[in-house]
Amino acid sequence: MREVAILGIGQVPVGEHWDKRLVELAGDAIFAALEDAEVNRVEALYVGNMMAGQLDKQTHLGALISDWVGFRGIEAMTVEAACSSGALALRTAMIAVGSGLVSSALAVGVEKMTDTSPRETTAALASAASADWEGVHGITFVGLNALIMRRYMHEYGWKHQDFAPFSLNAHANGVNNPNARFQSPITEDIYRQAVMVADPINLMDASPIGDGAAAAIVVPLDLVKGMGHKTLVKIAGSSVATDSLAVHDRQDPLWLSAAEKSARDVYHQAGVGPEEIDIFEIHDAFSIMAALSLEACGFADRGQGPRLALEGEITPKGRIPIATMGGLKARGHPVGATGMYQVVEAVQQLRGEAGRAQIDGVKVTLTQNIGGSGATVISHILTAA
Amino acid sequence: MREVAILGIGQVPVGEHWDKRLVELAGDAIFAALEDAEVNRVEALYVGNMMAGQLDKQTHLGALISDWVGFRGIEAMTVEAACSSGALALRTAMIAVGSGLVSSALAVGVEKMTDTSPRETTAALASAASADWEGVHGITFVGLNALIMRRYMHEYGWKHQDFAPFSLNAHANGVNNPNARFQSPITEDIYRQAVMVADPINLMDASPIGDGAAAAIVVPLDLVKGMGHKTLVKIAGSSVATDSLAVHDRQDPLWLSAAEKSARDVYHQAGVGPEEIDIFEIHDAFSIMAALSLEACGFADRGQGPRLALEGEITPKGRIPIATMGGLKARGHPVGATGMYQVVEAVQQLRGEAGRAQIDGVKVTLTQNIGGSGATVISHILTAA
Repeated sequence: MREVAILGIGQVPVGEHWDKRLVELAGDAIFAALEDAEVNRVEALYVGNMMAGQLDKQTHLGALISDWVGFRGIEAMTVEAACSSGALALRTAMIAVGSGLVSSALAVGVEKMTDTSPRETTAALASAASADWEGVHGITFVGLNALIMRRYMHEYGWKHQDFAPFSLNAHANGVNNPNARFQSPITEDIYRQAVMVADPINLMDASPIGDGAAAAIVVPLDLVKGMGHKTLVKIAGSSVATDSLAVHDRQDPLWLSAAEKSARDVYHQAGVGPEEIDIFEIHDAFSIMAALSLEACGFADRGQGPRLALEGEITPKGRIPIATMGGLKARGHPVGATGMYQVVEAVQQLRGEAGRAQIDGVKVTLTQNIGGSGATVISHILTAA
Repeated sequence: MREVAILGIGQVPVGEHWDKRLVELAGDAIFAALEDAEVNRVEALYVGNMMAGQLDKQTHLGALISDWVGFRGIEAMTVEAACSSGALALRTAMIAVGSGLVSSALAVGVEKMTDTSPRETTAALASAASADWEGVHGITFVGLNALIMRRYMHEYGWKHQDFAPFSLNAHANGVNNPNARFQSPITEDIYRQAVMVADPINLMDASPIGDGAAAAIVVPLDLVKGMGHKTLVKIAGSSVATDSLAVHDRQDPLWLSAAEKSARDVYHQAGVGPEEIDIFEIHDAFSIMAALSLEACGFADRGQGPRLALEGEITPKGRIPIATMGGLKARGHPVGATGMYQVVEAVQQLRGEAGRAQIDGVKVTLTQNIGGSGATVISHILTAA
């Protein structure tokens, strides 16, 4: 496969976009990416989306969005792996361009979650878990994560407040991202006193849903090298790995084996280890997921994710800054779009275009998008080309 | 891209499988494909499915099915473009293998449509059309096709009975396919007297829904050449093209421009024209769609699809046999699986394994899977390698 680069990026602020349809959100992100890349055409479009069928009564987003943005006729399709659908769009675009099949492709992640009732949206989210073994009992997605967190606290002796730094860091960073859903910092008191959602997960452990879209344009690296574009970003690693959907069916429900495998793959492809990663755009859907991802990707020992956070190593000045633009917790988690927001944010950091959220000297980034409670994990390493 | 071959195929009979969950249907087709290919492992799984989120409250089929068939951990995802999701699975597998990314991939199309009420299933089908401009008015998918058929009859002067040969041919061929949902022939009287569904589409113009799954294993052609397998089948052409979802938004609602583009692409890739195609597995979701596809793919002049049928040229002894194993009309149309059934049937014909449905001397086949009323069209040319 030939090497591929990300030429342009675009995003819309995560929020409650009651004045925009799903196709308009996707279009706005795509138009921004086209402008950023200074191109006006692509040969294929890959859409990451999880729940438009359930919430919008609309499948078939590939053709729909292509037509909306003026590309009627091009190859288009939707890719889906629950909450990791976004990163799948990038990976599918990368393979299409890398294979030589097309010379330019657009990856867009889009989700519209706030036009429906919380009950409908919660039910749609639960479809990421096993309908036959989990959903059938009425457990919600946050409920499943609460079981994992409770067990984790029991096994490793952590208290609830030990997870506070994940939330504080994300919200502190979200302040610096104009596209974040929440742009105000929180305190330890706010964290401690937040309302309980599913014990032990309180409101400050859980990422908010939202409407959003983020896009990237992928081209062959050779084609754009030396063309005077902004800092070129190379996709140096890309990997998908899976695990059982039902959490009870895993050998160790406190270990994200798919995250470990997927991270190991991309480290190998990029020829780096966790020590070379400058920032990590993490899938902090819940604070427990942030802890487990840090461990699976080699940044903390088993059961020691919270220690890394308590020691300040996940902040912009720490050893491995995570959620540098707010993460899922503060930027928001429009599920099928989230993986593309992570990619767009990593590109902003690599280009030095992250504004007040900029981390100095970012050369190698890791993004990791998680579907279900770790059942599909997609990792990418992006580097300055 | 390196050349790729289909090494194994598997399918389950289309029907009302009330005793099998979706994952079991997919698994049965996959196990059959693995046995046929004489392999016990693949590196990636691509699932074509349209409506599991809506009807089963289950997204995330990639990881779910991988785990079920014993491949926990491998790369997996769902691809979707409404009723053309099945063929997308083959195309995605082809690109993954062709690019060198993986050395073997499984494509499976699966759909479960009969466990829910007709009202729910009909609503899910309508999500293939434009929710904002068509679905919102309450029009069903068959209703949209009825508008197209009525206009077609008006423009070109055809009577309803002129479409009878499409249905008669499909049902006559379905008799010879043990996996077909309907295995009994129909007469002109049955066609004429069938109950009206949406004027002018009667029950014998419309394909039946169903539960089903079909799978294929894709590998590099070089790897298996000369290994003594059954007739090797090469993917000689593959193309996706799109059009507007809303039918009223097309320049000519009686012309499938995406089918034309997609067919032109695969003819070019395979170095053939319509005259070299031995059989055409057509997307005869409705008899009008069969007519329009024949025209768009160059087998009939504009407005003259029914003439080809009336002259007997679409039968097994005709110039271009279509729906050789029953097509959507008699084999059945489990939407996300249909594209893979077409591929599996083409492979059966190329191998000489089509039993009583066998057409003599099949060397070059065209399969075409249509999403919506022509908004996504995926064509493949398979040949004996």
